[in-house]
Amino acid sequence: MAGILCAMRISQLSAESGVPIPTIKYYLREGLLPPGEQTSATRAEYGQTHLRRLRLIRALLEVGRLPVASIRKVIDAVDDEELGVHEMLGTAHYALSPAMEEHEETPEWQQARELVDRLIADYGWNINPAAPAREELAQTIVTLRRLGVEPTMADLTPYATAAQTLVSTHELHKIPFDAPRETMVEAHVIGTVMYGRVLDAVRRLAEESESARMLGVDG
Amino acid sequence: MAGILCAMRISQLSAESGVPIPTIKYYLREGLLPPGEQTSATRAEYGQTHLRRLRLIRALLEVGRLPVASIRKVIDAVDDEELGVHEMLGTAHYALSPAMEEHEETPEWQQARELVDRLIADYGWNINPAAPAREELAQTIVTLRRLGVEPTMADLTPYATAAQTLVSTHELHKIPFDAPRETMVEAHVIGTVMYGRVLDAVRRLAEESESARMLGVDG
Repeated sequence: MAGILCAMRISQLSAESGVPIPTIKYYLREGLLPPGEQTSATRAEYGQTHLRRLRLIRALLEVGRLPVASIRKVIDAVDDEELGVHEMLGTAHYALSPAMEEHEETPEWQQARELVDRLIADYGWNINPAAPAREELAQTIVTLRRLGVEPTMADLTPYATAAQTLVSTHELHKIPFDAPRETMVEAHVIGTVMYGRVLDAVRRLAEESESARMLGVDG
Repeated sequence: MAGILCAMRISQLSAESGVPIPTIKYYLREGLLPPGEQTSATRAEYGQTHLRRLRLIRALLEVGRLPVASIRKVIDAVDDEELGVHEMLGTAHYALSPAMEEHEETPEWQQARELVDRLIADYGWNINPAAPAREELAQTIVTLRRLGVEPTMADLTPYATAAQTLVSTHELHKIPFDAPRETMVEAHVIGTVMYGRVLDAVRRLAEESESARMLGVDG
């Protein structure tokens, strides 16, 4: 098996990865997958690098639901060995952020951003000024205010504390920092997206149960 | 002002709620908004009930992004005074759940559901067997396994604990249980959706900061 994995024909690469041959050929044409080693005019061989790369593309596509242009950016960051691991993971992280609607620069946006900045400062977080999550949080604050709900620092801190605990004691430790670059990015993408869904689902379960408890409903 | 709010013409209802007159007329035709009190052949008057109802419709539409058919179900639950508060909130809660893709009943789904059931039992949660969040969590577990990640109970519990703490000490206490039924549902919808976005954004911020810390990157 190890022998086969070291040098595979495209049919074996397809069988091992679960990615159909036409899709593999498409990734080769698009440059997302590096070419195999040409052993004759009609035969190329593929290896572990290709398998890892296909796993990453699949995670970005199926889990991250990223368009090919965004996948290319992430792959470029993986291939750029001069780029540090933090910046490489950040490229994937930013690509996964929800798209923001355009908006005018109003005083309510400035106030929302000030609240975000204060939260980041209070937690001592080290965040790039261009991080999309800053704008996401500001946008949510603006929307809440328009709905007549005025979020204060005291409303945000329980969420920030919960996130901080989850991330520092659990989430980041799942990334295999000694693995190849593709594997690190793949683990980061899966962790960010899928455990985001886990968190959303368990929060809904906890809400239902707590509502039943507070309102004295039997199960 | 209080006098005006007690009996408004449709133009005042529009100005107070921020909802355009044609949209109000559409809601009236669809039965989402109850008719005003007809004071003459060409004139109807609206009151606080209508304002509250418009606020709820707006929250379900703009925050929950629900289609009109789902909004009608929630409104019906609000109007059905025989329905308890927990069931009424539950109708909105279930309507807000992400749509599930169809799937076959496979052993991997059964295993995933068993893990969800064990988690719910471990936390002593009181959850309806038909709660959509059960299936959401099971689906996420199935997807993780297909990606070669095997989530165990130990992987899920940090998220469940974080959610439990947030919900019981913070989130459910934001619902004004002594307010009119519309207002309770509105607060629940805003809390579930918008604070879900807050949690997602602060988690991304915490991830970026923790990655920088673990990899020794300066801000």
